[in-house]
Amino acid sequence: MTAEADARAVAAFVAECAGRVGGDIERQLGKHRDGELAKAVLYAGTGEGKRIRPAIIYATAQAAGLDFSRVDGVACAVELIHCYSLIHDDLPAMDDDDLRRGKPACHKVFGEALAILAGDAMQALAFERIACDAHLGAAQKVETMRILAATSGLSGMACGQALDIRAAGSQPDIAHLEHIHRLKTGTLMSACVTMTLACAGGAPDAVQSGLRAWAADIGLCFQIRDDILDVENETAALGKPRGSDRRQHKPTYISVLGAERARRELEQLGARCLAQLENAGGGCAMLRGITRCIAGQGL
Amino acid sequence: MTAEADARAVAAFVAECAGRVGGDIERQLGKHRDGELAKAVLYAGTGEGKRIRPAIIYATAQAAGLDFSRVDGVACAVELIHCYSLIHDDLPAMDDDDLRRGKPACHKVFGEALAILAGDAMQALAFERIACDAHLGAAQKVETMRILAATSGLSGMACGQALDIRAAGSQPDIAHLEHIHRLKTGTLMSACVTMTLACAGGAPDAVQSGLRAWAADIGLCFQIRDDILDVENETAALGKPRGSDRRQHKPTYISVLGAERARRELEQLGARCLAQLENAGGGCAMLRGITRCIAGQGL
Repeated sequence: MTAEADARAVAAFVAECAGRVGGDIERQLGKHRDGELAKAVLYAGTGEGKRIRPAIIYATAQAAGLDFSRVDGVACAVELIHCYSLIHDDLPAMDDDDLRRGKPACHKVFGEALAILAGDAMQALAFERIACDAHLGAAQKVETMRILAATSGLSGMACGQALDIRAAGSQPDIAHLEHIHRLKTGTLMSACVTMTLACAGGAPDAVQSGLRAWAADIGLCFQIRDDILDVENETAALGKPRGSDRRQHKPTYISVLGAERARRELEQLGARCLAQLENAGGGCAMLRGITRCIAGQGL
Repeated sequence: MTAEADARAVAAFVAECAGRVGGDIERQLGKHRDGELAKAVLYAGTGEGKRIRPAIIYATAQAAGLDFSRVDGVACAVELIHCYSLIHDDLPAMDDDDLRRGKPACHKVFGEALAILAGDAMQALAFERIACDAHLGAAQKVETMRILAATSGLSGMACGQALDIRAAGSQPDIAHLEHIHRLKTGTLMSACVTMTLACAGGAPDAVQSGLRAWAADIGLCFQIRDDILDVENETAALGKPRGSDRRQHKPTYISVLGAERARRELEQLGARCLAQLENAGGGCAMLRGITRCIAGQGL
């Protein structure tokens, strides 16, 4: 496949996954839509997001030979967790961003109080979605909810965001920056794979360990790419103000390593991710495509 | 038993439950204590709180003939959810309270950003606590997490808080005020009972329906009592600024009904709760004592 055809196939797949999870989120909210809080949740949970996390989940399901219906619940739940974190990250007390995904941030439309509560409610909804899933057994639900809680809380995403905010104005070494981003972005992306494997039950050991190794690095890959995009792209293309990380004086891969070394780091990490997929069997075509897009031009 | 002996027995029981759940929260945080975020969570999750929700859970376990160890997980989880809601409620964008449980609110000590993240992390920790519980089966974990998510999110506590904030400055009728407080306070208190029953499995139908009926009203009872205390008590005794609801111009049972009718409403509701316990069998002594304390002088 040419690189372009590859990118087109990935884009189509990601769009399919985005549609699947977007519809799911809307259905979850169907019964709650009358209230202002439900409107804020719907606003933040639907729209133009790339939904890369659900795409990773469905592509991992493909690699593990698992029917998509089995992972609809965890895909929806992970996206709800991600969306709640964006609402809270954008608050004035946090990153103070006015734009998100090409539209005004939740707190700009609904006010800060409702934005805080919308994030809180979305986190609860994520767990409710898995608990009520029709396609998973009880043990699978418990294990996926355990992973989701562990990777989004005190040992994962929330901790990473706290370290990220504290690092504003400082110039950490590359090891500390990597530590921050593995927590802030890496753990939940990694959870996309481990949750899917928990749904699959008996994937072969080699497939599992290859996918786990890939998962451990792809989030960091994505974050370096995001840092590069944050500097390179225009507001319109990115959907958030250009260079907002620089405005917050947050350390990024660009500010710590410089643009050239950051790009080399991304290339090397992307190559390592691709090598890890070599060990994960033949069903990884889409994960390979996603990796190339993250490490290269797309997504 | 005299009323005083009754109140002493309840106070001792509540203190025992508070110790149990406080120790549990500290153990959950033991592995995370190095970070600033974990410190904020520990600060907000430990200390002088009454821990009435865990007390309801343990007293319900007693009524259902269930060993306390079986409900330690849900007691800890409900208290973590309650504590996270207090952190977020106290934020300047929400109720803007500087004091909580007799000490500075979380955001006054750690800043707003960390307080938001501490609340987020505590919510995740609540679900992690149940998922990792050593005393419940998978189906019980799923059901209790489902109840916790449903009653704390968009159809429960978070929704009630959103309505409460929107009602500031208005004078709703009593039906709407009751609706707000049933969501804000009632649903999670009710969940204390339904989660415990889910842990118990096979309590007799009459016991279950009596306890469920009690649960549906006790939260409202507690809220009316809280509104009365908010006006009557001094800052020192309550641990939050005196009359903070009035400062926010929030409608309360006092502002809507007047002090006299609010007290009568509390009495009537308390009597109804006690009557409901008559149907729930002989193990309800402590729930009766808790009800009398909530509807009367204590707690």
